[in-house]
Amino acid sequence: MGLSLIASTAVFAADPLASWNEGPAKQAIVEFVKATTKEGGTQFVAPADRIATFDQDGTLWVEHPAYGQLFYCLSRVPAAVEEKPELAQVEPFKTVLSGDHAAMAKLTLDDYLKIAMVTLSGMPTDEFKQEVHAWLAKAKDPRWKRPFTELTYQPMKEVMQYLRDNGYRTYIVTGGGQDFVRAYSEEVYGVPPEQVVGSAGTTEYGYDKSGKPQLIKQPKILLNDNDAGKPENIYLLVGRQPYAAFGNSTGDRQMLEYAKSGKGARLAMLILHDDAEREYAYGPAQGLPDTKVGTFTDALYNQATSEGWTVISMKKDWKKIFAFE
Amino acid sequence: MGLSLIASTAVFAADPLASWNEGPAKQAIVEFVKATTKEGGTQFVAPADRIATFDQDGTLWVEHPAYGQLFYCLSRVPAAVEEKPELAQVEPFKTVLSGDHAAMAKLTLDDYLKIAMVTLSGMPTDEFKQEVHAWLAKAKDPRWKRPFTELTYQPMKEVMQYLRDNGYRTYIVTGGGQDFVRAYSEEVYGVPPEQVVGSAGTTEYGYDKSGKPQLIKQPKILLNDNDAGKPENIYLLVGRQPYAAFGNSTGDRQMLEYAKSGKGARLAMLILHDDAEREYAYGPAQGLPDTKVGTFTDALYNQATSEGWTVISMKKDWKKIFAFE
Repeated sequence: MGLSLIASTAVFAADPLASWNEGPAKQAIVEFVKATTKEGGTQFVAPADRIATFDQDGTLWVEHPAYGQLFYCLSRVPAAVEEKPELAQVEPFKTVLSGDHAAMAKLTLDDYLKIAMVTLSGMPTDEFKQEVHAWLAKAKDPRWKRPFTELTYQPMKEVMQYLRDNGYRTYIVTGGGQDFVRAYSEEVYGVPPEQVVGSAGTTEYGYDKSGKPQLIKQPKILLNDNDAGKPENIYLLVGRQPYAAFGNSTGDRQMLEYAKSGKGARLAMLILHDDAEREYAYGPAQGLPDTKVGTFTDALYNQATSEGWTVISMKKDWKKIFAFE
Repeated sequence: MGLSLIASTAVFAADPLASWNEGPAKQAIVEFVKATTKEGGTQFVAPADRIATFDQDGTLWVEHPAYGQLFYCLSRVPAAVEEKPELAQVEPFKTVLSGDHAAMAKLTLDDYLKIAMVTLSGMPTDEFKQEVHAWLAKAKDPRWKRPFTELTYQPMKEVMQYLRDNGYRTYIVTGGGQDFVRAYSEEVYGVPPEQVVGSAGTTEYGYDKSGKPQLIKQPKILLNDNDAGKPENIYLLVGRQPYAAFGNSTGDRQMLEYAKSGKGARLAMLILHDDAEREYAYGPAQGLPDTKVGTFTDALYNQATSEGWTVISMKKDWKKIFAFE
């Protein structure tokens, strides 16, 4: 009895943000939670209104050298060509099938959109989910040679859990595909599908051969969840203004503005990737290289400073980056 | 102590579906809940998957002589004309401003869509919500001379509460405006805004004069939440297939099919308005008049029979219809 009491006290007293170094970033999170959950406090937020939103790529998991979903789309090209053999002679599919890395490195954003359209549509929603699961089980990040889902940031998972333990609902608000992220969000982040807002195509209701209803994913964009699309889609799917928001690039700017602009205590945080050794270093703010993936500009840095957002330095603020370290 | 114990026992033992007569409809609801919540049972459903969806107009509140939101749109025409004076000379606004009931009765669906477009867009989302609240506080149904929110069906509110008490999350899935219903769903039905799926226009992120972020409602349809749109939008906003669905018209057909088609115990229920005395009687199924609002056809009736949906007769199954009776 005595031992079990000590054990549970120890668990209770453990630092919920153990992977964070002491400093202004950790302090901002703790102060925000204390202020908004203190019964009778002037900044108390009712549990139903406790909403926190998180970008995914570069905020919850590694986005270099390319977004995880892009690797998925590339892996699906052979299956898509099997379905529609005429694609084999059409660019950019021809290049992807060639396996010529030098040629693939030259593919444009427009090429990738074509690949995404073809590989993310045409199948029933249930089948798509199974395909994502199967891919996640075997795909490896090219640098760490680990599943992509292990390349999630331990400090951010602690923030999500800490917020949930204090009555917040944590939403992922991603420029990536809503269906893609929903396939693993519960298992990887503890975020259920209905709390994932992302870019989305339309679906079409119909029936399979046995007459059973199904939804087929269509090659038509319905929601573009980047930039202004983030607050617009939070409004559409949630109908509430977040009290806290976390991002890492210019595509998250409006979401952070939106969260921060409400009354009472608000938390807006931007992750700066400044740790080339343990992860990657890119900006171009703070003199870091502009890699065009997850762009963090000087203008964004200045807006953070002038509007009271907190910049998280991966190098200084995070004791560890991945759980496996 | 003794008295308070008896009182709480009485509350606990009270019939959660007190406004329902004994019969197959009530029995279907109770059996579904028992089957899906019995720990270790073969049809047990994990709490996270317990989703029930409800149409609103004609399923949760009166939809005759016209949808409540239509009365709202008509009430907003003078304000819309004040904003854009040129509308005063344009149909259908000219007719609405005239107050000529005979002329208004001839307005077409297309006319109403024009009125909806103008009266439901152009303002910040917060302002729209306030306008809906102000209207609900003073608007009265033409027959009962009561606020529209009192013309909600007591038996259906009991079903919602009963499901919630058994771990279900209750969603409203309405052909009406998502923003409109979200403005009062929590207060009237106990359904928070993020659990309302409805027809929706786009919004546009921008800034007010003081530089504060705001979302402006645009006159552009994004989601049409009728027919196949219901399962499609449930998938978009919730990402889970409902275990129970409730509707009252052909516009709910696909949602009921979708809910019923999953594995395990499923509940699909259709309300038949067959009580001209206490509410309204319309079909055209069962020889009731076709009023073109909330159409319930013979084909729908036959599908209910052949696919194991339960038809609720308002006349036979409901002891009382409104709380104020």
